[in-house]
Amino acid sequence: MSWNRVKEGRCHISRPDPINIILMGFGNVGRAFLQVAHEKKELCLKRYGLELRFISIFEIEGALFSAASLDTSEFLEKSASQLAAHLHWRPGLKLEQVLKEVKPGVLVECTPSNIKTGEPGLSNLRKALSKGWNVAVANKGPLVVDFKSLKQLAQKNRATLKFSGATAAALPTLDVGLFSLAGAEILRIEGILNGTTNYILTRMEEGISYEEALREAQAKGIAEADPSLDVEGWDTASKILLIANEVMEKDFVLNDVKVEGITNIPSELLHRAKKEAKVLKLLGRLWKEEKEFRIEVALSPIDHSHPLFGVNGTNKGISFFTDTMGAVTVTGGKSDPKGAAASLLKDIINIYRIGKQN
Amino acid sequence: MSWNRVKEGRCHISRPDPINIILMGFGNVGRAFLQVAHEKKELCLKRYGLELRFISIFEIEGALFSAASLDTSEFLEKSASQLAAHLHWRPGLKLEQVLKEVKPGVLVECTPSNIKTGEPGLSNLRKALSKGWNVAVANKGPLVVDFKSLKQLAQKNRATLKFSGATAAALPTLDVGLFSLAGAEILRIEGILNGTTNYILTRMEEGISYEEALREAQAKGIAEADPSLDVEGWDTASKILLIANEVMEKDFVLNDVKVEGITNIPSELLHRAKKEAKVLKLLGRLWKEEKEFRIEVALSPIDHSHPLFGVNGTNKGISFFTDTMGAVTVTGGKSDPKGAAASLLKDIINIYRIGKQN
Repeated sequence: MSWNRVKEGRCHISRPDPINIILMGFGNVGRAFLQVAHEKKELCLKRYGLELRFISIFEIEGALFSAASLDTSEFLEKSASQLAAHLHWRPGLKLEQVLKEVKPGVLVECTPSNIKTGEPGLSNLRKALSKGWNVAVANKGPLVVDFKSLKQLAQKNRATLKFSGATAAALPTLDVGLFSLAGAEILRIEGILNGTTNYILTRMEEGISYEEALREAQAKGIAEADPSLDVEGWDTASKILLIANEVMEKDFVLNDVKVEGITNIPSELLHRAKKEAKVLKLLGRLWKEEKEFRIEVALSPIDHSHPLFGVNGTNKGISFFTDTMGAVTVTGGKSDPKGAAASLLKDIINIYRIGKQN
Repeated sequence: MSWNRVKEGRCHISRPDPINIILMGFGNVGRAFLQVAHEKKELCLKRYGLELRFISIFEIEGALFSAASLDTSEFLEKSASQLAAHLHWRPGLKLEQVLKEVKPGVLVECTPSNIKTGEPGLSNLRKALSKGWNVAVANKGPLVVDFKSLKQLAQKNRATLKFSGATAAALPTLDVGLFSLAGAEILRIEGILNGTTNYILTRMEEGISYEEALREAQAKGIAEADPSLDVEGWDTASKILLIANEVMEKDFVLNDVKVEGITNIPSELLHRAKKEAKVLKLLGRLWKEEKEFRIEVALSPIDHSHPLFGVNGTNKGISFFTDTMGAVTVTGGKSDPKGAAASLLKDIINIYRIGKQN
């Protein structure tokens, strides 16, 4: 990582150009992002001096495109399939065509996450970064698959790669690690990073079985129909991996993470935890062992002295243990599509605000 | 508040100049700052590209001064009174003389806090900001007394005014409010912002009297010999005031804050809280009532659903309740002189890093 400095008072421009936005994917998060960006248009302009201009919205079969700017209000209540009926719809339009025609801004990556191939997000990010576009990413896939070279590609092209939305949404995991703890050495990180598993564990603690808790979570829309990525620990593994790589400047890949899930909890473990007034949490964890950092996802009994002890239900939290600042813990933050959308907007604001002048 | 943008890739300088530092005050925090800055010298250079250069250290009777740079290692174990024996000691040296001779950098304000007059910090900050020096402040006094005009002075001189060290030290209250919640509307803030009162309340909950708890806190060095600013709520009031003014762009003064302390807790209140499984916390609070924000310090019974429920002993915490990001809570962070020193260093790093390039 390298930080560049700007001399005070030198580089101010009085009237910022509009920021061109390409939105990739119009599923739950993509649509929520459009909604939030639309609602916050005035605030972005007034408080941060940023004018957001949607140029293109991509879905599988093509894209909306207008070099002059799309009117966001026209797409607020639309589903992905309804986009194709619009005047500005271009069937089969390719991202590279848009990147070629439009001055770089931010590509907002919201396509479905695939932590094996990274696609289609990985190709989108490579194309955008190569052209000097900044990117704000909600999709873990491409970063989990190819973190190091995406970072290098961003650096080479002087683009900024931000992904708060891929690392526990509105819970500010990366901001706190990078910004609030600047200058401190982080010795250990522990996080409850997956709402579904934490909900199931909380309910099991209250006395119901794993199967009942999972069914309940599915009925409430907390767990997916196929919950395996969550309950087998891979979602948590992806997030602690991305946090470790970004905040600690590591190059971990998924194979480096020792991953445990919650599908086969020995009942003896549950009973003992209860007896010792502990709770079982699925923790993503990074710590130093003999000068090497290790990374794992593990079912861990913690007692009331642990800062994440009270993080229950779908809530999340992360603790950073440092040398000079003690333990700093952040909890909460909406983890629904709206929370992810708000954190994409936050990343865009923080890419462009750069220096805050009082 | 206004945010200025810098075009990508335009204003980079490859080799940063050293950052001149003037340290005001060599008490517990000032000395801890020198220590931390000394220990983190290499890290600042390697990770953030920042070379910190101590030019001057002021105490009541004069100052150490070397335009070429003081050797920090010579002063690490020294008390304030020992500085006067050093070769570089200049009795009666005035801050304005140093400001005149040296290229602007950061003034680090660590003189004793006086929330009535703001002095001597207030004069120090005015002099430094007028000359275009950035400031990192651990001393609440000047900001509580004259927030608005100090901000304006900074803006006019294109200087940055940062004060994490004055708003709960290593607990990142301002960073989270300004940076991690960018784009969200903050609807309510609640904080446990004073370690001494929280310690006393925790102990009272465990069954001992106010007087016993206070004596215990004094014996442990948690409470001061004259604890009135803490136990009467003024320290909490000062902090919530500064947080509200900075994060919410308000112009509150201390007179606007309705302040309650913990010196006369009705025993009935304690009993009822216990009966209802609640805990009593001294909360600094900001909230909207009929389109106006109100600010107070109040003894508040909270139950286990409140994110600050588990913040006990000398721990602190703050919750931001927002529109798009839900409730985000941060807890912990060292609150001793070392924690304050680390947060001064953090502010300096964040003043100069400005844009993070990947």
